[in-house]
Amino acid sequence: DAAAGKEKAAVCTTCHGADGISQLPNAPHLAGQPEVYVVEQLKAYRSGARKNEMMTVIAQPLSDQDIDDLAAWFASIQVTATVP
Amino acid sequence: DAAAGKEKAAVCTTCHGADGISQLPNAPHLAGQPEVYVVEQLKAYRSGARKNEMMTVIAQPLSDQDIDDLAAWFASIQVTATVP
Repeated sequence: DAAAGKEKAAVCTTCHGADGISQLPNAPHLAGQPEVYVVEQLKAYRSGARKNEMMTVIAQPLSDQDIDDLAAWFASIQVTATVP
Repeated sequence: DAAAGKEKAAVCTTCHGADGISQLPNAPHLAGQPEVYVVEQLKAYRSGARKNEMMTVIAQPLSDQDIDDLAAWFASIQVTATVP
């Protein structure tokens, strides 16, 4: 549920931006990212299969429902790409 | 060097798209991703710190210059995000 994900994504905006466009050089854009990819990465951070100081802390308390909602929210953001 | 990175990124387009917009549900958009982030991730795949069947194979032969060029290329793609 993207709307629920938007609420839950409040904590993400500091690094990943309110619109999913990264605010930090070492944080990725999450805008429009495919749901399956986001779910896989959040679960990897939660399990420790993927390691990042910040994301390990963020992901640990997330439920599967939280993860699905967050992924739905970021996937719902429309992105366009223009090649130089 | 983004231009050199564009050439080297030919192999990436199958999954990540010619414009960095993912073609697969479990592959991320790379369009506009911050250079530092892309460099970190490619080096993590190369060293095995981050694991993915496909990306481990792709990253293993890359030189530091290749990685810098690829990151410069993807960062050079302009992205816009529209929140629903």
